[in-house]
Amino acid sequence: MTTLDHTHDAAARSWVAAANDPATDFPLQNLPFCAFRSLGSLEPFRVGVGIGDQILDLSGWGITDMNALMARRGTERRALRHRLFDTLKEGAPAVALLPQAHAEFTRPCRIGDYTDFYTGIHHARAVGRLFRPDNPLLPNYQWVPIGYHGRASSVVVSGTPLRRPRGQVKPPDADAPVFKASARIDCELELGLFVGPGNALGEPFGIDEADEHAFGLTLLNDWSARDIQPWEYQPLGPFLAKSFGTTISPWIVTMEALAPFRLPFTRPEGDPQPLPYLDSPTHRAQAAFDIELEIWLRTPAMAAPVRLSRSNLRHAYWSLAQMLTHHASNGCNLQPGDLLGTGTISGPQPEEAGSLLELTAGGKQPLTLPNGEQRTFLLDGDELGLRAYAEKPGFRRVGFGACDGRILPAL
Amino acid sequence: MTTLDHTHDAAARSWVAAANDPATDFPLQNLPFCAFRSLGSLEPFRVGVGIGDQILDLSGWGITDMNALMARRGTERRALRHRLFDTLKEGAPAVALLPQAHAEFTRPCRIGDYTDFYTGIHHARAVGRLFRPDNPLLPNYQWVPIGYHGRASSVVVSGTPLRRPRGQVKPPDADAPVFKASARIDCELELGLFVGPGNALGEPFGIDEADEHAFGLTLLNDWSARDIQPWEYQPLGPFLAKSFGTTISPWIVTMEALAPFRLPFTRPEGDPQPLPYLDSPTHRAQAAFDIELEIWLRTPAMAAPVRLSRSNLRHAYWSLAQMLTHHASNGCNLQPGDLLGTGTISGPQPEEAGSLLELTAGGKQPLTLPNGEQRTFLLDGDELGLRAYAEKPGFRRVGFGACDGRILPAL
Repeated sequence: MTTLDHTHDAAARSWVAAANDPATDFPLQNLPFCAFRSLGSLEPFRVGVGIGDQILDLSGWGITDMNALMARRGTERRALRHRLFDTLKEGAPAVALLPQAHAEFTRPCRIGDYTDFYTGIHHARAVGRLFRPDNPLLPNYQWVPIGYHGRASSVVVSGTPLRRPRGQVKPPDADAPVFKASARIDCELELGLFVGPGNALGEPFGIDEADEHAFGLTLLNDWSARDIQPWEYQPLGPFLAKSFGTTISPWIVTMEALAPFRLPFTRPEGDPQPLPYLDSPTHRAQAAFDIELEIWLRTPAMAAPVRLSRSNLRHAYWSLAQMLTHHASNGCNLQPGDLLGTGTISGPQPEEAGSLLELTAGGKQPLTLPNGEQRTFLLDGDELGLRAYAEKPGFRRVGFGACDGRILPAL
Repeated sequence: MTTLDHTHDAAARSWVAAANDPATDFPLQNLPFCAFRSLGSLEPFRVGVGIGDQILDLSGWGITDMNALMARRGTERRALRHRLFDTLKEGAPAVALLPQAHAEFTRPCRIGDYTDFYTGIHHARAVGRLFRPDNPLLPNYQWVPIGYHGRASSVVVSGTPLRRPRGQVKPPDADAPVFKASARIDCELELGLFVGPGNALGEPFGIDEADEHAFGLTLLNDWSARDIQPWEYQPLGPFLAKSFGTTISPWIVTMEALAPFRLPFTRPEGDPQPLPYLDSPTHRAQAAFDIELEIWLRTPAMAAPVRLSRSNLRHAYWSLAQMLTHHASNGCNLQPGDLLGTGTISGPQPEEAGSLLELTAGGKQPLTLPNGEQRTFLLDGDELGLRAYAEKPGFRRVGFGACDGRILPAL
């Protein structure tokens, strides 16, 4: 658990003018990490910190490897935050920065393993209802944090276009599947948790140690081919319906920056309480987060994107700490830079859904966009973007940057 | 497709005496790769080649990174095989070698992603029968090569002990799960395919290009906690029931060494034929492999291990080339060093099963061992080993070395 200190003080200002804009994602109180280089250069990517519309290069600080930074203990992470804060606060001497507009980004670290959880109960129920109208939520859902291993190699950074995948699709009335371009490309609105120090193989940790292993959050779009998924996923889970690409934002917002936006972790009346290994008084007091999440779409016919949905991480049924603790509970070794997706975080209302599958009732009810176009799933050329931010009276707004991707035609 | 040449000549002998022993896994015709160092040293691990009971160190050849070696095109791989053969054949000048008994091993390469397929149809049917007696094989099985993403971080090399995992288990008659040490630890008899050059994101390859991306095979034990698995695996597939550890042998037997043991790829009469993207005349002619597979067990009460089962890779329903081609068919990028498990390769007869789950009818019929002990699943201290080899009249036997692991008590 991170306690609040002067780095969370809303009155603190930066000598970087744009960081003091109330609308910026990156005020002095945020200080997210990224991997960047000068646009169009062939330099190696460097570790940087976002501040307003600029990037502070940490290579001069001896920080040249994000995974090594993630392996540091929480006390060291907090000391670094304080040093960054002091360097960029109003009154400190200006140092050289690179404008974000002159930078290109890559994945912020080496991602050893990527796991995707399923903590959005409203999503699980809505999707379950499409497949099993009488029994939408499986009996294990409220007891065990459901998750599965995802594909790490195809995690790409915001702005990378993705080619529409081909795959096996079996129409319900056909005798045999056909191999064709997917016609049901969807997004999934998620956050991704980057692992900090992690644990050795065979050595689980307790729920109250989980925060030590949580480095920070990124936006995550778990692109999905909804026509490939139902045919392939029994009995071993989603595979090629997901592995054609997963987009993350270039920025890692640290758990320290998000400390003001913690909430108590509660369960609805009558629901099972978490088993003891996933429960503690400290966890109950502060393990949830109030982070707004949004889906935006820009079709080729639009000048500006439109918002399709908004939700909030507080709707997650399992906390980030429970995801970490459960993942390591069998002795599985988590490593610095591992990525844990939350799963699609839909809100309780239909318009708060985190996927087109839900927003269009399984593709049966097209969305009508403000310019009159209609969409069920994504068409070639469509740009889908996720956004997230945390805000609260008395604190500066902390944002996550962009998580955008455009669909290219199938080969 | 690799054609046979003088490196497959059974009459060829090595100046390393043990390589000429007919029982060795590592004759001159094999030349498997490993990562090794002197036992007990703190040196970096180096790339080596097994020959008889010795290891040839390739660091003097400028080969210092296995993943870089795996990225080479097939023509370069074959040229290296010829050079190794010429260096170790009878008559060539002796060079310094390290006895395997004086070496320790690690994972032979960096494993970016680990995928586990399900190509053993007899296993799929036997396991399906335990869960769904009337409908053992799901309708997609004979059309789509089923696979799922596995956990790369917990892949360990032969000899690494594994701690019995704890996890959520729900007895059928209980209202709620309990968190406890697994009582049903099982093995799964598999081979693992290491990926060679691989493909860029969004760029699938054809079935006849698949061999170019197949570097070699290793033994793979997909340890499974059978009491954790049924409670957690719906709807997203196996997770913590598998991720506590996966053991591989230290050796990668190249596809070139296995070329004499290729077989035609055929489907039983009346079964669906593979869709065109998974089919070609070349594939049909030679995509299967005749590789014997064995499970061995040594309990703490035994002086020597006993064989529990034997099977053969020719029973796989999908070929290695189909695994590769299907995996990349949606544009997913495969990378040098990625590991693709075949899934449990059980034979058609009950005694040819590749897991204890099958050999004991779901834990209902214990095995009686030669010393009178009984086993359903593994007890603490049990050592489980996999072995594999290919043999054929007119060719030298090619073996895979050891894939052993011992179960430690739960924490």
